[in-house]
Formats: sequence, C-alpha cells, structure tokens
Amino acid sequence: MLTCSKERLEDKIKTFSKFGDTGKGGITRLSLSKEALEAREEFCKRCRTLGMEIKTDDMANIYATIPGEEGLPAIMSGSHMDSVKQGGNYDGILGVLTALEAAETIVTEKIKHKHPITVVVWTNEEGARFEPAMMSSGVITGKFDKDIMLASKDIEGITFKEALEASGYMGEIENRATSEKYKALVELHVEQGPVLEDEKIDIGVVEGVCGMINYEFTFIGQADHAGTTPMKYRKDALYAAVKTIQYLHDELDKLDSKLVYTTGKISAHPNIHTVIPDCVKFTLDARHQDPEVISQVLDIINEIPKVVEKCETSYEKAWSRNTVRFNPDFIDYVEKNAKEYGYSTKKMYSGPGHDAQFITEIIPTTMIFVPSEKGHSHCEKEFTPIENCLKGANVLLQTILDIDKN
Amino acid sequence: MLTCSKERLEDKIKTFSKFGDTGKGGITRLSLSKEALEAREEFCKRCRTLGMEIKTDDMANIYATIPGEEGLPAIMSGSHMDSVKQGGNYDGILGVLTALEAAETIVTEKIKHKHPITVVVWTNEEGARFEPAMMSSGVITGKFDKDIMLASKDIEGITFKEALEASGYMGEIENRATSEKYKALVELHVEQGPVLEDEKIDIGVVEGVCGMINYEFTFIGQADHAGTTPMKYRKDALYAAVKTIQYLHDELDKLDSKLVYTTGKISAHPNIHTVIPDCVKFTLDARHQDPEVISQVLDIINEIPKVVEKCETSYEKAWSRNTVRFNPDFIDYVEKNAKEYGYSTKKMYSGPGHDAQFITEIIPTTMIFVPSEKGHSHCEKEFTPIENCLKGANVLLQTILDIDKN
Repeated sequence: MLTCSKERLEDKIKTFSKFGDTGKGGITRLSLSKEALEAREEFCKRCRTLGMEIKTDDMANIYATIPGEEGLPAIMSGSHMDSVKQGGNYDGILGVLTALEAAETIVTEKIKHKHPITVVVWTNEEGARFEPAMMSSGVITGKFDKDIMLASKDIEGITFKEALEASGYMGEIENRATSEKYKALVELHVEQGPVLEDEKIDIGVVEGVCGMINYEFTFIGQADHAGTTPMKYRKDALYAAVKTIQYLHDELDKLDSKLVYTTGKISAHPNIHTVIPDCVKFTLDARHQDPEVISQVLDIINEIPKVVEKCETSYEKAWSRNTVRFNPDFIDYVEKNAKEYGYSTKKMYSGPGHDAQFITEIIPTTMIFVPSEKGHSHCEKEFTPIENCLKGANVLLQTILDIDKN
Repeated sequence: MLTCSKERLEDKIKTFSKFGDTGKGGITRLSLSKEALEAREEFCKRCRTLGMEIKTDDMANIYATIPGEEGLPAIMSGSHMDSVKQGGNYDGILGVLTALEAAETIVTEKIKHKHPITVVVWTNEEGARFEPAMMSSGVITGKFDKDIMLASKDIEGITFKEALEASGYMGEIENRATSEKYKALVELHVEQGPVLEDEKIDIGVVEGVCGMINYEFTFIGQADHAGTTPMKYRKDALYAAVKTIQYLHDELDKLDSKLVYTTGKISAHPNIHTVIPDCVKFTLDARHQDPEVISQVLDIINEIPKVVEKCETSYEKAWSRNTVRFNPDFIDYVEKNAKEYGYSTKKMYSGPGHDAQFITEIIPTTMIFVPSEKGHSHCEKEFTPIENCLKGANVLLQTILDIDKN
C-alpha cells in the first residue's frame, strides 16, 4: 500500500523544530515573528521545489498548490505553524508537515489526481501574540471583523496590521479560500489529550468539535475578622464557593461520561489568612459534543440557589461555542483508510478549537488526530512518536485521494 | 456612683479622629507617621495639663503618670494610637482615651489613690507600617529581637530605627515597663467582633486571648487541557482542595461551638479557565481558648489523607500562639464593677492579639471589651456608640481604683 516516507517526514519535523528552538525541547514561534517567518520561508522553498504554486491572501494565509485538471476546485490540507510561548513541535506544525509530505508523496510517486491539491498554512491560530485564537480562519469565514483583528496588539504594542504588512506574506483578498475554489479541507492535528495513547489507538477519527460553555460565578459574603466572628455570624464567600463547586461536581458527574468540565480559575478577596473572604469568583468550562448534554449542564447551573451559606450567588456566561460536526463522508474515509492500513481507530470529538471548525462552515471539512504522549500540549514536553506521525500522514494521503476520486 | 465625663470623652474621641482623618469616617495613622506624631503631641499636651509626668522608653512607648505614694509600683492603663490604612476611630485609641479620661476623672475629682497611675501608649501595635504587629510590647517583654525590629522597613524603605530616631519620642531603656515599676495593666479595647452588640451586652469581661494555629495546605495535581482530558484521567488540585475544605468544615463543626476557623486565602496555578489546576494552596486559621480543642483541630488536620482525588497533599504550620489567661482577680474586678454600674457582662476570650497578651507575661494584666457596631473593625466603618465608650471608661476607672485598694 502507498505510504509516505518516514525519513522525509522526520527530516521535516526536525528542520522546522529549529525555527524558534528554545533549546529545551520546544519552540517559541509566535505568529508573524522572525522565527515564524523563517518557518514560512522554509515551507515555501520546499513547496516551490515540488513545483507548487504559492499564493497568499490578505490575512497572510498561505496556499501552496499542485495543479489538477482545469476548472476543478482544490482539496486543501494543512494547519498552522505558529506556537504558544514555550510550546511544542507538534501542535499545528504537524498538520502542515504531514500535508506537505502527502503532497510530496503524490508528486514524487506521480500519483494521478483530478483536483488540485493545496497545502494551507493558517495565520495566527494560537492567538498567543495577537488575540484572538484562530484569527485568520475566523476572518475569511466571517466570524471576526477584519478591522478589529488588524488593530489587535501584541505586548510590545505592535498591531497585527503592522506585523502583517512587514511580513511580506500579505496577499490579495481574492486568494482567500472559498467554496468555489475549494472542495475540501482535511486537517491533521495532535490530540492534545491522553485518550489515544492510553487506549493504544493509532488514529483519532474526529467527528467534530465539542460545544462548550464558559461561566463565571460570583459569591458575595462579608469580610470579618477570623478571630472575632463566631461561625454562626459568618458570610464566608469562599465556603459558599466550595459548596457550589462540590454541588456542580456531584450533579455534573451524573451526566454523560464524555462530558468534561473544569474549574480552572478561582480568586478570593481580600485573600488574607485572617479575614473571612467577602468575594469569591470561579469559572466553569464544560464541553460535550451533544447540545442536549450542554443544555443539561445549563439546567444544573440554573439550579444553584440565589443564596448559598448566606452569601449571594450570581453567574454570567463568559463565552460559548456550538458543537461543530464534520463532513460524514470524509469521516468515513478517514476511518476506512486507517483500517486498510491496519491502524486502530477511535471516533472522537475535539475538545479544543481548531481552524477547521471555522472552515467547515464554508468548505466540507474533517480532521485526523494522532496521539499526544501523556496528553502534553502547549508545552515543551509535547511529543508524538514518528511512527504515529507517519500513520497520520498515510491516512491523510489516502483521504485526500479518496476525496479526489469521489 | 463615680463616673467619667461623657462630654470630655466625646471631645477626646472627636479630637483624636482628626489626626489622620481620611474624610470618609476613618483614619490612616500609621505608626510614627506625621499623623501619629500629631496624636502623640496632643496626648502629651493633655497629660501635662493634668500634671502627669511623661517618660518614653527606647521603643518610644509613652508612660504618662499621676504620682502616688513614694515607692509603690504604678497601675498602668492604655493601648495604642496607630491604625491600619483606612482604619477606624476606636481600635487602640479608645483604650488610650478611656485611660486618659479615667486619669482625668481621678485628678479632677481628687480621688485618693496610693499607687501612681500611668496612661501608656504602645508604639506600633498594628504592624501596618513596620512589621510585625505588637512590636514594642513584644520587644520589652523579650518576644522580639530589638535589632531585627529596628531594621524593619516600611514600603518606602524607611527603617523603624530611622522613624524612631526622627520621632522625638525615643527615650531611655530604663523607662521600659517592668514588674518592679508596674503592679498592673488594664487595657480597654473594642471587641472587633459582633457578639457583644448582637447579644446586647455592655461589657466584655476578657479572660484571656485565644490560642491559635495557622496552617498552609498544598495540593499537587497535574495541569492538563480542560477540553481534552476526560474526567477519569484528571488530577485536579482545586477539586482536591475543595474536598479538603469541606472535610475540615464537616469535622471542625463537630468540635466546641466557640471554635472559630477560617480559610481566608486560596491560590490556584496556573489559574487559567481552560487549564486543570496543578497546584492549589489554602490557609486554615483556627482559634480557641482551650488548648485541648486546638489539639483536636490538629488531630483533624493530621487525618487528611496523603492523596486526595489523586493529588498529593501536604501542609505546614505557618505560625501559632498559645492561649493567654489574664489575672483572675482583675477579671473579677471588671465583672463586679460592671454589675455595680448595672451594665450587662459576658465573659469572653479575645480572638485577635493585643499588646496586653505580651505584657501579661511580666505584669498582672486584664482587658475590658466594649461593643463594635456590626463587628466592623480595621475599616472606616468601625464604630462604638459614646454610651458604650463611657460604660467602658467607668468600669476601667473603678477597676484601676480596685487594684489600687487591694
């Protein structure tokens, strides 16, 4: 069976790990930084060597294309090359490099295909230098207002517009991905979670991106002296918060086992060991693929009493996202191809967001996950063995060819 | 029955409320600040008018004395005049002003007494400018090392030594309070808690100062992505902390109802709403007059499992204080005198620390509490009605005279 080259893929991963190398196993390659531009240059050089035509759009998204038959829309694959501060060598970049390796295999092995094949690089997926995340896929799909995005500043006060203009990668608005020009997007990504590795699964067949809600809860009590206030007089906002976190755990644990929920952030005021806290805030992030389960989470939140332990409770939605479902045919191709290679598979939803979740609204899309060692991601320890990367590349290659045929 | 003057006491409270007036009902009168020195000047002026002899010791503690019979030790009463930032007009200063009013009554009414009567002002009780609290009573009773105290710096980098030398109040080490020179200390103070007001009690007969322990707990889990990590894989340090706070509440609530305990401080790392916390710390402050109850608290702490919700738990003592018991005769005098005036009384222990708890180790001591409106203290809302202040002054006066007689 046709496979990508392990040596070539390994070389790609090694080469790109130099751009922004922290010297401690990871990279800092913030969007449109010097390091990110070096990576773009290497990417374009390799694409040109393969005879690909390179275009960029007004958000500096790069589209490198192997020609197909005249008049047919292209099949896209790719991801992003920017990282968070002290990030790893797999998040994003592996989706670009496996797409490039699939393209290189098609070129080198002279595989026939009708549709043009495009390797895409989305600008500023992480949002680590310029907020928000998934900025450029968001702009071209109408999720974000371009003018607001252009005004986004990094910590040094440089705007995204300035970085974009200085990059040399800002192209024409006409080059944006549209449903007329593109038939499909397949994005390979590391799982960023522990499930595939733990269950010894090779390929995550991604069915969509989980819906999520993020709420902030506030508890107002009364600040009194820890030494003078008998327990019965107290309005302890922290204890009210503790009771509520426990209530949320108790109730949310009764819902579907695929639900994930997290209180990641908590603050107490005045946060002095001898003062009873008068104001405590915490967050709740909850994610599930089924909107019905998210609705059950909301019901549980809505049942929090107005007063807990004599403290006033309130909450507000910080943000939310509806569940995104990928193209069913493409999902089937991914699963079938993995099985044909003899790889084990698991159907799953993505917890984190990806550019693919925006693109799927205009172009049929799916994703492929490969395992993340111990689930580490957004850190220098992020790692996926080369064997797993190659399995992902092979499934990606065959899925592109399946889309081409059908 | 002999009473102090309500008008005079009211004038004293009003006058001293100008030194450091925040314009919002409270004062900022940090130790040895310009405002504190103004208050000292006014205090000394009033003492001189009453014919009192003024001495200061090497820590700028002020001793203003009405003479008694030759060779007898003096009876001391007083408190501190410094405040926290945006503090109130009662904490500390009321103990000084009621002592001054008692002295003024004795002088004005020509009340006979054998022992000299000294109004004392302790330097830097709050520790709000120079840490630690109760600094100068601590130095003269050997609790704190004087050289370390002299090196204590305020936020502007000024040392306590510099402030002391510049104050004009630094006197001789020979003037320190000792058991040879002083027969007794009676300190009147606001309760700083809600009990007296709530139970409609005039006078708190203070039996001592509660013992306390302060612990810091640490929970180590694992930081993972909120969207990719199934619940069963998690090591959520915040949830482990929540479970433990609940356990502490459940168990500590079974102990004596006079026990007070507080988790005032909590922190989570990395404290990001989409990341499972890998490190959470919180404090526990527990106070009770009976060492046996404090020992039961320790037993409960010691029963916290080494691992809670798959997170490692640990804890360490931040600080502690043993229960202090005041002089039983003096306690009886306070109670008897309050009853003779027709005031209601309640025997109680102080939760917060006071200079009296250090002085009691060298000189027989007791304290008198008056109610704090709604228990507010260390804030601008701190208030005690003049009627209650006067009742306190009357009990103080008679207690000084009882000590003089016996």
